[in-house]
Amino acid sequence: MKVGFIGLGRMGAPMARNLSKAGHELTVYNRTRSKAEHLGVQVANTAADAARSAEIVITMLADDHALENVVFGHEGIASAMQPGAIHVSMSTISVALSQRLAKEHRERKQAYVAAPVFGRPQAAEAVKLFVVAAGDPTMVKKCEPLFSALGQRTFFMGDQPEEANVVKLSGNFLIASVIECLGEALSLVRKYNVDPEKYVEMLTSTLFSAPVYKTYADLIVKEQFEPAGFRLQLGLKDVRLAMAAAEAQAVPMPVASVIRDHALEGIANGMSDKDWSSLAQVVASNAGLNGRK
Amino acid sequence: MKVGFIGLGRMGAPMARNLSKAGHELTVYNRTRSKAEHLGVQVANTAADAARSAEIVITMLADDHALENVVFGHEGIASAMQPGAIHVSMSTISVALSQRLAKEHRERKQAYVAAPVFGRPQAAEAVKLFVVAAGDPTMVKKCEPLFSALGQRTFFMGDQPEEANVVKLSGNFLIASVIECLGEALSLVRKYNVDPEKYVEMLTSTLFSAPVYKTYADLIVKEQFEPAGFRLQLGLKDVRLAMAAAEAQAVPMPVASVIRDHALEGIANGMSDKDWSSLAQVVASNAGLNGRK
Amino acid sequence: MKVGFIGLGRMGAPMARNLSKAGHELTVYNRTRSKAEHLGVQVANTAADAARSAEIVITMLADDHALENVVFGHEGIASAMQPGAIHVSMSTISVALSQRLAKEHRERKQAYVAAPVFGRPQAAEAVKLFVVAAGDPTMVKKCEPLFSALGQRTFFMGDQPEEANVVKLSGNFLIASVIECLGEALSLVRKYNVDPEKYVEMLTSTLFSAPVYKTYADLIVKEQFEPAGFRLQLGLKDVRLAMAAAEAQAVPMPVASVIRDHALEGIANGMSDKDWSSLAQVVASNAGLNGRK
Amino acid sequence: MKVGFIGLGRMGAPMARNLSKAGHELTVYNRTRSKAEHLGVQVANTAADAARSAEIVITMLADDHALENVVFGHEGIASAMQPGAIHVSMSTISVALSQRLAKEHRERKQAYVAAPVFGRPQAAEAVKLFVVAAGDPTMVKKCEPLFSALGQRTFFMGDQPEEANVVKLSGNFLIASVIECLGEALSLVRKYNVDPEKYVEMLTSTLFSAPVYKTYADLIVKEQFEPAGFRLQLGLKDVRLAMAAAEAQAVPMPVASVIRDHALEGIANGMSDKDWSSLAQVVASNAGLNGRK
Repeated sequence: MKVGFIGLGRMGAPMARNLSKAGHELTVYNRTRSKAEHLGVQVANTAADAARSAEIVITMLADDHALENVVFGHEGIASAMQPGAIHVSMSTISVALSQRLAKEHRERKQAYVAAPVFGRPQAAEAVKLFVVAAGDPTMVKKCEPLFSALGQRTFFMGDQPEEANVVKLSGNFLIASVIECLGEALSLVRKYNVDPEKYVEMLTSTLFSAPVYKTYADLIVKEQFEPAGFRLQLGLKDVRLAMAAAEAQAVPMPVASVIRDHALEGIANGMSDKDWSSLAQVVASNAGLNGRK
Repeated sequence: MKVGFIGLGRMGAPMARNLSKAGHELTVYNRTRSKAEHLGVQVANTAADAARSAEIVITMLADDHALENVVFGHEGIASAMQPGAIHVSMSTISVALSQRLAKEHRERKQAYVAAPVFGRPQAAEAVKLFVVAAGDPTMVKKCEPLFSALGQRTFFMGDQPEEANVVKLSGNFLIASVIECLGEALSLVRKYNVDPEKYVEMLTSTLFSAPVYKTYADLIVKEQFEPAGFRLQLGLKDVRLAMAAAEAQAVPMPVASVIRDHALEGIANGMSDKDWSSLAQVVASNAGLNGRK
Repeated sequence: MKVGFIGLGRMGAPMARNLSKAGHELTVYNRTRSKAEHLGVQVANTAADAARSAEIVITMLADDHALENVVFGHEGIASAMQPGAIHVSMSTISVALSQRLAKEHRERKQAYVAAPVFGRPQAAEAVKLFVVAAGDPTMVKKCEPLFSALGQRTFFMGDQPEEANVVKLSGNFLIASVIECLGEALSLVRKYNVDPEKYVEMLTSTLFSAPVYKTYADLIVKEQFEPAGFRLQLGLKDVRLAMAAAEAQAVPMPVASVIRDHALEGIANGMSDKDWSSLAQVVASNAGLNGRK
Repeated sequence: MKVGFIGLGRMGAPMARNLSKAGHELTVYNRTRSKAEHLGVQVANTAADAARSAEIVITMLADDHALENVVFGHEGIASAMQPGAIHVSMSTISVALSQRLAKEHRERKQAYVAAPVFGRPQAAEAVKLFVVAAGDPTMVKKCEPLFSALGQRTFFMGDQPEEANVVKLSGNFLIASVIECLGEALSLVRKYNVDPEKYVEMLTSTLFSAPVYKTYADLIVKEQFEPAGFRLQLGLKDVRLAMAAAEAQAVPMPVASVIRDHALEGIANGMSDKDWSSLAQVVASNAGLNGRK
């Protein structure tokens, strides 16, 4: 398929590479052009150029602001895409922006699919992402060859693109909740001299044998918060987006509130650029345990 | 081994049966004698009688109060056990009571091992419990044949019996946190018309593929809160015990506080005897979703 | 003084009247022109017209959005105000918008003073408002004759206009916290059959003898939530603005989080248009007390 | 009246002195006898001796434990008081203990009145306490000459003694909530460079002109946390008692939960013996402001 791909960051670069390997005809655009050049595919000068003749345009950008620029800004894709072409937004963005994209593309007779992913850069590289897709089922179907080239499994969530975004945000909230709650449980048992490694081994061999517990318990116990896989300030951003989506529909989420307050506490105390698993360090230091204080 | 076994409730009865099947010589005691009789083992008239000639006395009772009665009350085991005999407390009790038991048994030259379990009655029946043990390693070793007859795996947590209790309580806190957080995430996505079953299928096929998410997400989505596997008021009791242990060591646990407040809200609104997964119903009703309000 | 006055809502109308009574030469503008006409002062067709020849332009509008329109929109005041003229923003707005106004007016050689007020419409009528002002002291001084005509006292908070806004938002947070905490305390004592009126009489005769306790305790005990003096959804808006200002500076405010969650709970359950003192009803119903559930 | 007075701590000593000055015939008892001797009244060797011939026995002790000892312990007052004599418990105790006292005295044909007070030692000295009384109205009436000698005003809350205790505990919760919320508001405005003294002056001249705001805002702004008027660990104890009373009646109090967690955080970080207004320091340090971290 003819694919425009915009955004070659830590996630986007391996994703574009995998699409190209799978035989798709890519035109890529990245703000910093140098990052695009070593991919060995066609490089566009503007987002619009990458989108102009594509059947499908994939965006994988840092945040709402970057995506808005690329879609609606000068030389953006909204005015360049052909009628009938599909914009597949794979970044983690706000529900509000996804709703706006649905509306704006509809008005231009373009299609819009939201398809955020779960997985860190290594998973992107290894074609191990999980894709969470939503939108017009016919359009989502057209995208499936691309999703198969990017991840190990695609989950179709519903007809409204925003459903995929809210699912992604709620998923990041659940990951953050695991970090927070492990942090609280570990602080408790450490104060009673329980060996944290034995404790985690017990948890993850029994009821809590999921990847998310293994990954984060390991980071927390080793206090391995740098280099960050996902920075605390980005974690806060995603929790904020989940809370904004919740507020728009009047959903109280008190554990999200706790996480937000702890993320702010971490940021106020110099931890913005640590991995978001350092939320557990905020919790530990509040209990007087080593670390920050 | 000669084993005294006290407490034949929904957990204790299958445990006693499994010990007997494994060839141990049991004398059992239960406040309501009738529950003891159909086990086909020796039935004692008092807790003291069950303990008098036992090498190991196992207690599996409802709460601190029941255990205190059986140990220190009239015809209790503390005064009946032989020097060198071991009291294995397998109920979920407070850290404070476990500390007291350690002290009192020591003064009487008796041994004390704390060995609470993870698992519901079906797991007890199927010898699938997880045993979390702590205490003098030599004594814990002596108990291993019993633990093997009761569960699929034993985790040794440390030399101080209280370590096992705090681990058990923290584990129940973590289970409650999964219920609470799934409740918040599900309320959010339901307000955006996401199909809860698809959502849970996605979560439990990916990052959250642990038994605890599968079990509780299923109960929550089906709103199957009765009959209770574990009643909300008992869930509150365990969270309270975790918070009391935390308070004794100055550990703030704000998510535990949220859970406590939601459990009280449920109890204030008639849900005491529902399954503790109904915490998620409290969350949903606060978001204006069906159910209670 | 020659004053442009924009926004004749429940607060703005009596304020404009008082300025006119005090002898100032007013030109008013209101989106719905009819509300302006019975004031007996000059009525402008556009915000720009009200601002063009004014020494001071006062805005008193519902929210950020309305103020942005009036300042930067078509026929807005920013392009109409004379160099050296002062824009006095008296609405409760976000810190971020206040910062933007400061910057934009500076670039146009206009002055900008933030001067939000404490007080309900009756207080506005009775010249009993409290004015919280910040900005260039020389400019604030020029506004003082106006402030004296509007309120009983003016507090100068500092050189940066945003200081007045953050003080106003924090004040509204404190009022909301009084409602929330009275709600919790009253739920507790009511469950023990204490007479709420006696209770409130005791509180407000002793340590809590401030207007804010008297006003809100009275509304809560009488469950007089309609008609709303200040609607719950506006209360939520102000708490959200306080939390946004806090987030921008990394300040965790967990009680603000509790209030936000309770406001959302109220809104999810049909209470948007009740007075914000009905936060206490959310709290009471969570305790199983009469009312909503 | 013939009065037994037990407990001559920082509150009890000036109270006993004032009763004696008012002409009542006192017999006092204090665990440390030396503190009793310089009062110039009769000193008993045991609590029982102080109670034996008294019409009214007042207890003013540190906590539940101390009161239980004095009432039910060896040489306690329960077995010494005459039928018809009144025990007036003026300490801040748990609702549960007050309920037990009511029951036990009733069984012994003795009367029981709960009459905790608001006010610090200086207020006790100056006969400025507020007395919150509950119990059989005839008995409360008999105590009024004593209450008049101790405080500036008595509030009668109801027929059940526990009502006075729950009112007192809820009052201490409200004071703690003022400290917490002022701490949050001050952290917010300080981050925007608002002068804290000007801020507090504004608050306490307007809506928040109550003694509790003046007293605590002053301590917080001056960071005058030592010597403690009321230690943080005692503050935590009272919040815990309020939460226990709330739990017994299924009342969620999420702001109390926040306060409890912050008190634990302070205690975990070495602040047990500071004044409880240092809760605001916990809040400030979480925002990265000076102080602890």
